[in-house]
Amino acid sequence: MPSSANTAPTSSRALHHPDRDEIRLEGVLHALADPMRLRVVRALAGSSTELACGDIELAISKSTSTHHYRVLREAGVISQCYRGTAKMNSLRRADLDALFPGLLDCVLRAAARAPSPNS
Amino acid sequence: MPSSANTAPTSSRALHHPDRDEIRLEGVLHALADPMRLRVVRALAGSSTELACGDIELAISKSTSTHHYRVLREAGVISQCYRGTAKMNSLRRADLDALFPGLLDCVLRAAARAPSPNS
Repeated sequence: MPSSANTAPTSSRALHHPDRDEIRLEGVLHALADPMRLRVVRALAGSSTELACGDIELAISKSTSTHHYRVLREAGVISQCYRGTAKMNSLRRADLDALFPGLLDCVLRAAARAPSPNS
Repeated sequence: MPSSANTAPTSSRALHHPDRDEIRLEGVLHALADPMRLRVVRALAGSSTELACGDIELAISKSTSTHHYRVLREAGVISQCYRGTAKMNSLRRADLDALFPGLLDCVLRAAARAPSPNS
């Protein structure tokens, strides 16, 4: 169970995140257009705290998982930071809602209704 | 100007379209995740009639244009049919709205607000 009381210091290892004004609709849609990445986004949307990659079960290889998280981060959908050895993830909901009002919620609702290709 | 009075018979050349229950959220998002395809969708959404490919200015090669229309059709975003020598296009709005309520409108609004990479 992730804890909001995690006070481990953020590592200085930098991960690039686009600024809000660099986030593009097409990039966000592309990032969301994958069942694994949608699963990550749904898990983060349903969590009140940031989640480690290991908290979200994807049943894919570590390298493929890392790729999917990177696509989400580089599109501006999630933010990632190191805390100790764990890479923690959270949705950039405020940025997405400001740029594309309603879009994230529409996609989350559609994903909740749609049959998952893995279910 | 396209005309709704176009009564040319539909060609028998068949173009595959997924049934409504074959349309997948991930496929729709992927189809929308491209500035050229978004431009097509916005043009069709803003038209009360079906549009020929030539009615929508994309400034790209014919083969690339054909590819983009095919991605949209195969994802279930648009329907296409031949009328004489013209391939006519329309949005599958009823199908998309039934499957993913609000999603198309959210994307269209976001696209209208977002700066186009070509503008």
